[in-house]
Amino acid sequence: MGEFPQPNNIMLSAGASEAIRAVVKLLVSGEGKDRAGIMIPIPQYPLYSATLSEFDAVQINYFLNEDADWSLGTEELQRSIDEARKHCNPRAICIINPGNPTGQVLSRQNIEEIIKFAHKERLFICADEVYQDNVYAKGAEFHSFKKVLTEMGDQYADQELASFHSTSKGFMGECGMRGGYCELVNVDPGIQAQLFKLVSAKLCPTVTGQAVMDVVVNPPQKGEPSYDLFMEEKSFVLSTLAEKAKLVADGFNSVEGVTCNTVMGAMYSFPQIHLPKKAIEAAKKQNLSPDAFYATHFLEEAGVCIVPGSGFGQREGTFHFRMTILPPVDKIKEVMDRFKKFHTKFMETYSD
Amino acid sequence: MGEFPQPNNIMLSAGASEAIRAVVKLLVSGEGKDRAGIMIPIPQYPLYSATLSEFDAVQINYFLNEDADWSLGTEELQRSIDEARKHCNPRAICIINPGNPTGQVLSRQNIEEIIKFAHKERLFICADEVYQDNVYAKGAEFHSFKKVLTEMGDQYADQELASFHSTSKGFMGECGMRGGYCELVNVDPGIQAQLFKLVSAKLCPTVTGQAVMDVVVNPPQKGEPSYDLFMEEKSFVLSTLAEKAKLVADGFNSVEGVTCNTVMGAMYSFPQIHLPKKAIEAAKKQNLSPDAFYATHFLEEAGVCIVPGSGFGQREGTFHFRMTILPPVDKIKEVMDRFKKFHTKFMETYSD
Repeated sequence: MGEFPQPNNIMLSAGASEAIRAVVKLLVSGEGKDRAGIMIPIPQYPLYSATLSEFDAVQINYFLNEDADWSLGTEELQRSIDEARKHCNPRAICIINPGNPTGQVLSRQNIEEIIKFAHKERLFICADEVYQDNVYAKGAEFHSFKKVLTEMGDQYADQELASFHSTSKGFMGECGMRGGYCELVNVDPGIQAQLFKLVSAKLCPTVTGQAVMDVVVNPPQKGEPSYDLFMEEKSFVLSTLAEKAKLVADGFNSVEGVTCNTVMGAMYSFPQIHLPKKAIEAAKKQNLSPDAFYATHFLEEAGVCIVPGSGFGQREGTFHFRMTILPPVDKIKEVMDRFKKFHTKFMETYSD
Repeated sequence: MGEFPQPNNIMLSAGASEAIRAVVKLLVSGEGKDRAGIMIPIPQYPLYSATLSEFDAVQINYFLNEDADWSLGTEELQRSIDEARKHCNPRAICIINPGNPTGQVLSRQNIEEIIKFAHKERLFICADEVYQDNVYAKGAEFHSFKKVLTEMGDQYADQELASFHSTSKGFMGECGMRGGYCELVNVDPGIQAQLFKLVSAKLCPTVTGQAVMDVVVNPPQKGEPSYDLFMEEKSFVLSTLAEKAKLVADGFNSVEGVTCNTVMGAMYSFPQIHLPKKAIEAAKKQNLSPDAFYATHFLEEAGVCIVPGSGFGQREGTFHFRMTILPPVDKIKEVMDRFKKFHTKFMETYSD
């Protein structure tokens, strides 16, 4: 292990998704009580649940703490793995930092706790760090799992880790390029060779995606001709994201029956909506989850598309939705106006 | 079914490889004697063997007839499936036309026979047609499985088929774009919906690849500004491919101990080399297959890189290699000169 990347430990991929799937595949085997279990956050990005289902692995849920800015409590991690060990073989923990759909940015201390937990439980760490360049809330800072692990000293020097990055999700936002990479840390060379063999059978990711990934990790440097323009665009994107993140969270929190954590990074808000019984019953009649019922009404009545929280997972009996903060500031203001009107009317219609 | 494509039956993919993997995945299930078997040609493009091994399906080999221009004999297909039925459940037949690594182009009659065989045996047809635009031998013509199937009448109107195409392999040769598509014919709508769901979890293929795929299937038309230049470049590429295909096959056939079928399409020659016993023994001593031993010597002594036939599969006791015909004419001439010198010296060294 070393702080600087070892080129042979890095593989390029068609977006982060492909690399995540390849690494998860590596971790999956066994039947019955030995069937591989993979810990994933709830709420999560559905790539994880879909991949585990496709590969026939056990999905082990750990819940992010909504009351503490969607952070990861080690008590909850422990509860989750202890329960899972009764019926499967936990092999890995996936962490999405900054969070999708939750927008949290993990503190350095929280990352240390997670590494200690993974090390104690002999879990492979999958660090989905595709939003690492989109951190904008005051005081929030991105710490990579690899860096923290490296600085934790020899005791943890055998901790296995894969870190994923992408061209799609930073402030550059080049989603259509399908560029990405995965860096492997402390992975057994024999296993790593098998992974590279597996990936090679699918040939290379797109050449343009590879080139864009190169630009993402090697942005213009001071003194280079495009540096000033690059910095101008970068600060514009990040400062308006910060502005919109605040607009959206404040907007949601100003409405009765809605609560929203500070959006620190990534590009989504994930507010909780407290739905009246009547709305929940009306949803049931239409064979919809209550949040999908709410989202459908918001789309049809106000023309705004949000994603129901049930697609990402949420604690039973709670309802959320994911809303992107990507549109321009004036559009976001308009969206929040429409939301307030819609929500007030919805609550009146379905009040108990 | 209809002769014109139904947009809803077409899915874009990151090169043909990804779509082939997704469709094969759909066909795989079962244990023991019910374990899915997939028929593939030998020699084959190793994506197939690698994918079947990864998905834990049974690889059912059918041998192309080297003595009849690498065509598919239905007797051999029948032998292959009858044997396979003893220990697995044959579900599909994969055909590569034009062939890789063998360069043959199937006649219309041969395709009809294969369709009749697949229909009788209730096999899904995977038609790998990525080389469809690279057919240049006199008298050879590309017939798509879909077109032939459509014209065979109602009796075969329920035959399931997937056809694959790519931006990488035509005369345009845009490999790095990773564009491709798959057209599904007569696939059960419920199954097709599952396939699209499976593929969607991995998000879209690269946008540039999608755009290039569009250009491949909609080339400039007469009267359009770029038509003349396009046709000039197209005929240049195809006529030089034809010239090189002939140069290479004639060159191989002029050397003792080497035989090569006419290269009708795609971009490779696949000559057979008749190796002396001494060479085979020398290879064994180095723990190499005899064709790999030969290829290593050719690379080291003459600076030309070929791929041993054992990577593609070949009848036991026969040895081949794949050599691309892509370099410019003068380079190909130089390569054939080097080959003749190398081969003569090799045969002298290892003559019995």
